[in-house]
Amino acid sequence: MTFSVTILGSSSALPTSKRFPSAHVLNVHERLFLIDCGEGTQIQLRRFKLPINRINHIFLTHSHGDHVLGIFGLISTFNLLGRKADLHVYGVTDFEDIFYKNIDYFTDQMSFKVIYHVVDPFKVEQIYTDRHVVVSTLPLRHRVPAVGYLFREAPKPLNIRKELIAKYNLSLSEIVEIKNGSDYITPKGEVIPNSEFTYIASLPRSYAYCSDTLYSERLVGLVKNVDLLYHEATFLHSHLKLARLTGHSTAKQAATVAFKAGVGKLIIGHFSSRYKNEKDLLKEAEEIFPLTEIVNDGNTFSVEPKSTY
Amino acid sequence: MTFSVTILGSSSALPTSKRFPSAHVLNVHERLFLIDCGEGTQIQLRRFKLPINRINHIFLTHSHGDHVLGIFGLISTFNLLGRKADLHVYGVTDFEDIFYKNIDYFTDQMSFKVIYHVVDPFKVEQIYTDRHVVVSTLPLRHRVPAVGYLFREAPKPLNIRKELIAKYNLSLSEIVEIKNGSDYITPKGEVIPNSEFTYIASLPRSYAYCSDTLYSERLVGLVKNVDLLYHEATFLHSHLKLARLTGHSTAKQAATVAFKAGVGKLIIGHFSSRYKNEKDLLKEAEEIFPLTEIVNDGNTFSVEPKSTY
Repeated sequence: MTFSVTILGSSSALPTSKRFPSAHVLNVHERLFLIDCGEGTQIQLRRFKLPINRINHIFLTHSHGDHVLGIFGLISTFNLLGRKADLHVYGVTDFEDIFYKNIDYFTDQMSFKVIYHVVDPFKVEQIYTDRHVVVSTLPLRHRVPAVGYLFREAPKPLNIRKELIAKYNLSLSEIVEIKNGSDYITPKGEVIPNSEFTYIASLPRSYAYCSDTLYSERLVGLVKNVDLLYHEATFLHSHLKLARLTGHSTAKQAATVAFKAGVGKLIIGHFSSRYKNEKDLLKEAEEIFPLTEIVNDGNTFSVEPKSTY
Repeated sequence: MTFSVTILGSSSALPTSKRFPSAHVLNVHERLFLIDCGEGTQIQLRRFKLPINRINHIFLTHSHGDHVLGIFGLISTFNLLGRKADLHVYGVTDFEDIFYKNIDYFTDQMSFKVIYHVVDPFKVEQIYTDRHVVVSTLPLRHRVPAVGYLFREAPKPLNIRKELIAKYNLSLSEIVEIKNGSDYITPKGEVIPNSEFTYIASLPRSYAYCSDTLYSERLVGLVKNVDLLYHEATFLHSHLKLARLTGHSTAKQAATVAFKAGVGKLIIGHFSSRYKNEKDLLKEAEEIFPLTEIVNDGNTFSVEPKSTY
């Protein structure tokens, strides 16, 4: 069961010859969730051979062009391909009007519905859920209203430890009750807690996307223990003033969030094009949080299942 | 003195893994003229190491997304780089409103002026001229108002044949008069026509960009003898019906325009993504007009100077 994120674009506002503007695609059990949609996203989706018809949900963080300008072309392409499935777009309220204006202008005779869901960039809210994944908002602190997203696998049903079925000679109805969370009471009246009988096949995996944002202590609490954290790291800490001025983070700050939140792995990107040697940004982050990697367009980061058995 | 066109994007409406949407850049004596601006144009400009600050004029053919969706990101980038020079954009009237709406939305505190010049897609008009180049419109026939562009080097001053200066012992004032086009009258009263004394250092070179369009007999007359003709060739002639329905040309039709107009070279692109073997399109065109080449992103086609000496 896949849970992985592929980097489509990782530049900051100015794309470079190697980095397209921001876009990630999260694969949860072969459904694709697009996060941000910078210019050229549809080109990267083709280049990295991702099946675009598996995208039904697009999550936009804020209204800056380097995070959204690819969405009009992508939606045109969906339409040219005769898409039928509804497309759900999540974003801040101030993008809704220009979004629909452009969709109206650049598409003729839409073959599918586009539904824009306004999210509140100041609240933590569960905005989407299906059998496999739950998506929540993560308030960010940028120059304009901005919101990150936390993706967490939906809780799995409890599994029963097979050896105990034989030991206690459990009936089918007792097994069902235990799987639903009940404790077991032996014929002698002894209570055996549910936790002794059950385990989760694998712990829900999680991915948090945080860009663009100032350092945020609130965010630390919200991304506690996530398996994979993407946090922008636009500047070196020597440019902290500039980071504050522009509403961005330094590599050190990104790593501090990761360290304090105890995440499994930190991935950083959105580097200012002023830095010729991106390893300096990595080095700065690794000093705080060694489990850090730089993202490059085309990279895929997988989170492997962890069983509690 | 450069006169060359670099292909930034050459797909039709659906980009492929190898072709970005439409955009060409014409280099006339190191000034860059951008023609169409599909999604990802700014990325291709960087990739092919073209100095974007030399672009002061952008010529848009029509309002379809695959020809214009890169302009908002490009203008944002100009602004982030602190551009000062005016930017002139030429396009049809129905794009003006959404163009300005997007520029207003996606740029803050513009550091330069953007001037949108409405061109008439039904008239042949000279819309721009400077010391080096003259640009005229080429009415096209598409599903929406569409216009191609003809770029021609500005006429060069006459040069005098040096050997005749000595032969006729010409004075400086006589030389100036001849260079300005006068005939020469010998001391004995004999009139020697100007053409015997003068030549043009090089003939004005020309490039015509024709996309998107149905086959047009009128266009044949307008691109007569151009050195380099780009003509879209979206379909094979076996799909003529589809070409007509969608307002496009077949490879055979593109070659017919080139042949009838007697152009120096034909370059074709904008192929429907349905064709896996683009050589079929080339072969079809070459049967009518052998001096045909397929364009690929990153290709540069130079027109060399031709002297009349």
